[in-house]
Amino acid sequence: MRTVKLDLGPDSYDIVIGRGLLAQVERMTALLPQKRAAIVTNTTVAALYLAPLQKALEAAGVQIIPIVLPDGEQYKTWETLNLIFDGLLTARAERKTTLIALGGGVVGDMTGFAAAVYQRGVPFIQIPTTLLAQVDSSVGGKTAINHPLGKNMIGSFYQPQLVLADLASLDTLPDREYSAGLAEVIKYGLIDDLPFLEWLEANIERLMGRDTDALAYAVERSCQNKARIVGEDEKEHGVRALLNLGHTFGHAIETGLGYGAWLHGEAVAAGMVLAARASYELGQITDADLARIIKLLDAAGLPTMAPALGYERYAALMAQDKKVDAGQIKFIIMRKLGESYMGTLSPEVIAAALQAGCSDDAAASRVA
Amino acid sequence: MRTVKLDLGPDSYDIVIGRGLLAQVERMTALLPQKRAAIVTNTTVAALYLAPLQKALEAAGVQIIPIVLPDGEQYKTWETLNLIFDGLLTARAERKTTLIALGGGVVGDMTGFAAAVYQRGVPFIQIPTTLLAQVDSSVGGKTAINHPLGKNMIGSFYQPQLVLADLASLDTLPDREYSAGLAEVIKYGLIDDLPFLEWLEANIERLMGRDTDALAYAVERSCQNKARIVGEDEKEHGVRALLNLGHTFGHAIETGLGYGAWLHGEAVAAGMVLAARASYELGQITDADLARIIKLLDAAGLPTMAPALGYERYAALMAQDKKVDAGQIKFIIMRKLGESYMGTLSPEVIAAALQAGCSDDAAASRVA
Ligand SMILES: NC(=O)c1ccc[n+]([C@@H]2O[C@H](COP(=O)([O-])OP(=O)(O)OC[C@H]3O[C@@H](n4cnc5c(N)ncnc54)[C@H](O)[C@@H]3O)[C@@H](O)[C@H]2O)c1
Ligand SMILES: NC(=O)c1ccc[n+]([C@@H]2O[C@H](COP(=O)([O-])OP(=O)(O)OC[C@H]3O[C@@H](n4cnc5c(N)ncnc54)[C@H](O)[C@@H]3O)[C@@H](O)[C@H]2O)c1
Ligand SMILES: [Zn+2]
Ligand SMILES: [Zn+2]
Repeated sequence: MRTVKLDLGPDSYDIVIGRGLLAQVERMTALLPQKRAAIVTNTTVAALYLAPLQKALEAAGVQIIPIVLPDGEQYKTWETLNLIFDGLLTARAERKTTLIALGGGVVGDMTGFAAAVYQRGVPFIQIPTTLLAQVDSSVGGKTAINHPLGKNMIGSFYQPQLVLADLASLDTLPDREYSAGLAEVIKYGLIDDLPFLEWLEANIERLMGRDTDALAYAVERSCQNKARIVGEDEKEHGVRALLNLGHTFGHAIETGLGYGAWLHGEAVAAGMVLAARASYELGQITDADLARIIKLLDAAGLPTMAPALGYERYAALMAQDKKVDAGQIKFIIMRKLGESYMGTLSPEVIAAALQAGCSDDAAASRVA
Repeated sequence: MRTVKLDLGPDSYDIVIGRGLLAQVERMTALLPQKRAAIVTNTTVAALYLAPLQKALEAAGVQIIPIVLPDGEQYKTWETLNLIFDGLLTARAERKTTLIALGGGVVGDMTGFAAAVYQRGVPFIQIPTTLLAQVDSSVGGKTAINHPLGKNMIGSFYQPQLVLADLASLDTLPDREYSAGLAEVIKYGLIDDLPFLEWLEANIERLMGRDTDALAYAVERSCQNKARIVGEDEKEHGVRALLNLGHTFGHAIETGLGYGAWLHGEAVAAGMVLAARASYELGQITDADLARIIKLLDAAGLPTMAPALGYERYAALMAQDKKVDAGQIKFIIMRKLGESYMGTLSPEVIAAALQAGCSDDAAASRVA
């Protein structure tokens, strides 16, 4: 069992990583201000993990309100959020009723937002069950839902009291989802952790084989990286923006293909390659660096070519992104391998990156 | 011009009170991080005050996104909130685009909530145009929308950068709305400001005549009281709950009659009388005190008898209120005249207060 602490003064909390944590409910019950909690999950995860968690908590005397949502990014909407509010209000959940998110990033983001705004804020625990959620979305307190005009446009910064990353829950995760999580793991290496990037290159086969020790290390190191960055800049006024490496391109890919065609992590992988290509255009990384990045992402089962949506469409989609300031789109760019910064890119550099990094058959390559 | 400071460390802000502030836009422009702002208002207020405000800001070089909502508490919903998001996203509002709420408490609460969650938080300025909004809802950072199962159930604590209370805007306020605002003014006296209560008793005729000096003093003193309480307890863990004097009964009246039949302030007035009657039942205030409270509210044009919904219905409605902890309903009770505290009331005391304080013709007395 490994513990990473996210240091945010009075809002600090632990991220606990290990196998079999789901059944060890004392960590949770110790935090509940009232012997009542709502478990929010989705149909897929409920079938796998709701009963054991609910039973263990009930055996500890906690009254449970189970709320099961439909599964999918297309349900990360106000309508689904309202299902949470309906469940809470019907069960008369109070300000001290804790919300427990059991699921991937979609469930975690929506449950966190529900916790942030239900009666202006109730306690919240994250139990991430996808690799992406364990290394990224459950840590740091960003919560959101989508709006038809933009992804994650409506949300809050709202920290959980605890994150429990049970590695055993990843046993049931489909390969494609597992790889998508690895995209965010690799991202940490590229942002500012070259030793981790090198470790990943050396251990990608073990990780693809879901080796427990390798996985535990990768999740811990990822959470350490994210906790450090978030601890320095909770509300994304500065360094936290580095976590968006590959995401400006990535969000354009997700929106451009229609939510759900590519997984978030897949879009981020292709987006990181585009960011790397732009950095290469700027002469900041070598073609050997670029090749290493592509090789690692490829070994992780991720796409390294982006769909050919065309320059105009990419530009329009990126202009709608949240990382826009006075009309200027902010990109995370590589200064060198394993070191990134926030800056702007000229249309020429963007066009060159897209020219080299998009392919007509990329879009179709990921359809199940 | 009077200024009240709400001291919340880095989130501190000024509440500026005076006639003609709407046209003095430098106070606003000094705070804008970008020369762009959205003015959110409703159809009624837009017809009166949108054009002058928009013109004054545009003359100062600020690009304005006007967003006009339908008017009414029944529109304080997610659907209307989405109209704000639609307007912001269509105009590509960014994280530095300020939202300016121009209107009463409904517009202020919704715009504040929109500002809290649009892209996880954008700057926000309140220009309250009802008396209730100037003395209460615009100050303190509570924002919310209603849910079919409960009022203000979904929201945030989110502080504005500035509150501009232009007393001139009250000239157009209907009498019934003006009186509803006086209910919250009187509330401050009853919570813990006996000298103010006595001032109100002496000056209620001037206030009813909308005398500028009396009004300026009443708004300032109310804001001082609210600012002090909120400054001590921003997130309502303790003393801030005192601001709910009359509100547990009041919300039951509002919900019981259907939103909009009575105004919020009217329901609070009748609710404060019920709270006073409960305090009288407990032997904590005298019948002379009770008579003074009723006389003042009556002179302010407010209802002093509550609708006869029956004990069971009141109990059921109050159990749904936010101020419930482990099934216990919290009431604000008068220790003596001009001093209140939070506590619980036995069913017998509640029943006795309702018995004495409800009448069959109360409900109909307020229909326009
Ligand atoms: N808040 C943040 O900081 C942050 C960061 C990154 C991503 N995100 C968000 O996270 C979301 C993506 O998260 P995700 O990749 O976890 O997607 P997801 O939540 O949709 O989960 C992927 C799929 O795996 C299923 N699943 C979950 N756990 C499983 C398990 N243990 N076994 C089998 N199946 C399981 C889910 O039901 C779903 O079908 C996006 O909405 C993205 O915006 C948020
Ligand atoms: N956030 C808080 O702390 C807090 C506190 C108290 C009340 N509230 C909320 O405030 C709301 C009630 O606010 P309200 O009483 O201002 O109601 P309101 O916003 O509905 O305004 C009342 C009416 O007056 C109109 N109006 C507004 N300004 C006017 C003007 N200058 N001239 C003419 N007409 C004008 C409005 O269009 C509306 O029809 C409720 O939703 C309540 O929950 C919030
Ligand atoms: Zn991501
Ligand atoms: Zn009120």
